[in-house]
Amino acid sequence: MYSNEYYEREPPIPPEDYVRVNHIELKDFVTDIFIALGVPKEDANIVADALVTADLFGISSHGVQRVKRYVGGIKVGNVNVKANVKVVRDHGATALIDGDNGLGQPIGVRAMELAIEKAKKYGVSLVLVKNSNHFGIAGYYSLKAVEKGFIGITITNSENLMAYVNTVGRTLGTNPIAIAIPRPNPPPILFDAATAVVPVGKIEMYSRLGKKIPPGWVIDPEGNILHGDPKKVLKAIKEGDAAILPLGGLGEEFGGHKGSGLAFIIDIISGVLSGAAWGVHVGYTIGTKPANVGHAFATIDIEAFMSKDEFFERIETYVKEIKSLKKHPKADRIWLPGEKAWLTMQTRLKIGIPLHKSVYKELMNIAKEAGAKKELRIIK
Amino acid sequence: MYSNEYYEREPPIPPEDYVRVNHIELKDFVTDIFIALGVPKEDANIVADALVTADLFGISSHGVQRVKRYVGGIKVGNVNVKANVKVVRDHGATALIDGDNGLGQPIGVRAMELAIEKAKKYGVSLVLVKNSNHFGIAGYYSLKAVEKGFIGITITNSENLMAYVNTVGRTLGTNPIAIAIPRPNPPPILFDAATAVVPVGKIEMYSRLGKKIPPGWVIDPEGNILHGDPKKVLKAIKEGDAAILPLGGLGEEFGGHKGSGLAFIIDIISGVLSGAAWGVHVGYTIGTKPANVGHAFATIDIEAFMSKDEFFERIETYVKEIKSLKKHPKADRIWLPGEKAWLTMQTRLKIGIPLHKSVYKELMNIAKEAGAKKELRIIK
Repeated sequence: MYSNEYYEREPPIPPEDYVRVNHIELKDFVTDIFIALGVPKEDANIVADALVTADLFGISSHGVQRVKRYVGGIKVGNVNVKANVKVVRDHGATALIDGDNGLGQPIGVRAMELAIEKAKKYGVSLVLVKNSNHFGIAGYYSLKAVEKGFIGITITNSENLMAYVNTVGRTLGTNPIAIAIPRPNPPPILFDAATAVVPVGKIEMYSRLGKKIPPGWVIDPEGNILHGDPKKVLKAIKEGDAAILPLGGLGEEFGGHKGSGLAFIIDIISGVLSGAAWGVHVGYTIGTKPANVGHAFATIDIEAFMSKDEFFERIETYVKEIKSLKKHPKADRIWLPGEKAWLTMQTRLKIGIPLHKSVYKELMNIAKEAGAKKELRIIK
Repeated sequence: MYSNEYYEREPPIPPEDYVRVNHIELKDFVTDIFIALGVPKEDANIVADALVTADLFGISSHGVQRVKRYVGGIKVGNVNVKANVKVVRDHGATALIDGDNGLGQPIGVRAMELAIEKAKKYGVSLVLVKNSNHFGIAGYYSLKAVEKGFIGITITNSENLMAYVNTVGRTLGTNPIAIAIPRPNPPPILFDAATAVVPVGKIEMYSRLGKKIPPGWVIDPEGNILHGDPKKVLKAIKEGDAAILPLGGLGEEFGGHKGSGLAFIIDIISGVLSGAAWGVHVGYTIGTKPANVGHAFATIDIEAFMSKDEFFERIETYVKEIKSLKKHPKADRIWLPGEKAWLTMQTRLKIGIPLHKSVYKELMNIAKEAGAKKELRIIK
């Protein structure tokens, strides 16, 4: 049904500011940078794969433009390239992993792999992680469970960017939740959402595009709604004490206490219960102290409840029902969670990943400085 | 800190339309109705306790005003008073329960008790339920886990009242999620939220109070925002095909795809994976076919990850940090999830539960017709 269609959820605008590169070559290029910085090959591969997957999905805020941040973290000694990632508690269907301040992606993949092993045995599992770093898109890990036929759930805390309901200032991370559900054929269902009204990446994108920020995304330190000029709004968040609002917006009338509450609960499970940092204590990759990010990975074995065939038949019936609903007149189409990302990936596997020219240049400089691969072919 | 304060999240307005009754007497009265209708005493107790707890919490939409609906379901034979609730699958940390069309509350309590037993053994657990009915407030079950010192998570699907994002009409339930976290002293943290922008109970409350519906809660069958006159809006939902919007509102600009996606995922886990109904197929208690509601109960053993003492110290530190944030100038105070419900309960334990006079009369009639207790003392 998608075969002849090019779709990108985040198209490169204006096109002249972008180049396109092949996803495999981009992955190799990024892998090489991390290897040159002392990261073991297997870990470097995972970091590069997670970042390039985000770019394939059209989530450039979590794509290779983060290489700079991770490399910076390694250089200041805040990210441990030879992390001794280990299980420090194991209790049947649960485990606690100490990430030893390593890169978030290899820690996350190992934690999800352990969660899958445990769900195979016990039907459900929960693996918490402390002393980790930013791990990119949460959906990447939930999809690892789907690859093995399991339901995957991933949550994480993150640096403080969001206001707690009825307060001002940045207290909570935009703490996302990603749940992936297998289907008989791709794409799987992938719900991956920040508990903020928008992730900061969306504000960064608006800033690049010069698109006005609508009223209802951000408040200033006095609690006034900040909107309009995206560069000003972004600066107020990054340099001032402006905060992104929780999902549901300001106050409680439209459910701001729900987005805020979800972010708080995610922080309690992935941060407080894991032994990681929480709230304002979660550090930045390039900081003066380890970020101590906390994650949680849960996996459900479908076959603990019904046969895979029965589940697939039921989920496909539901999907057909959703697809045959009456579209809202203002909507472009009816989407399943994860479908935009998957369609974007199909497109970019064919025509390449768009990189902003400044990101391309930055990557070249980082590689040069690290003594890594020198070339990254531009295909368009 | 709360001792001398009377607070009610949903005060009885206007006061002359209400009477107050003692919570124990109300519970006895309601228990007696269900016993008279053939419900085993233990089950009747649970139903009454769950309903009265909702009233104590200030969630009257899920309180004893639901007795009429449940009794109606029993009378039309759609709710099975002698349900043979049984575990039909058991796989280590997971189980599947068939509720045999019984009342949702006793099924829910048994499922959560099983989840707690399993979490004690395996650290985490997941119990799904099919062939159930409306079970009241989801938080009631999560609090059962907290009573035993565990983290409790409850989700359920429910009759279709909400639009799927970018569509019109009622497709999804307002599918709530309730997560309860123990603290060393009450109140525990209790996040209990519909994934709709508001639960239908809030629109019913606005209708009773004659309070205008703000634009952004409900859409008509053509996708136009319905607001203003609460009676008209409520009628359009109940008799027409108007729908409540998901948390995040209309379209995707403020995250409507997030509320919708969460409701969809909750439906997949509690409905599709359990073998229950989903989406538009979830029935109403008084219907022509069993409602076949699906629930999911998960429990986490804190001590699988750290000592209870350490967890308590950490969570109390976080709570103090939240409480010392700078309040938004338009907010009344900074609330923790569940705090409004808990404070309302403290008040109502002392001064009684307000019942709308029409609800009080209805209860008297139901009791009379069922041959149950004749009196329910009015204390004010």
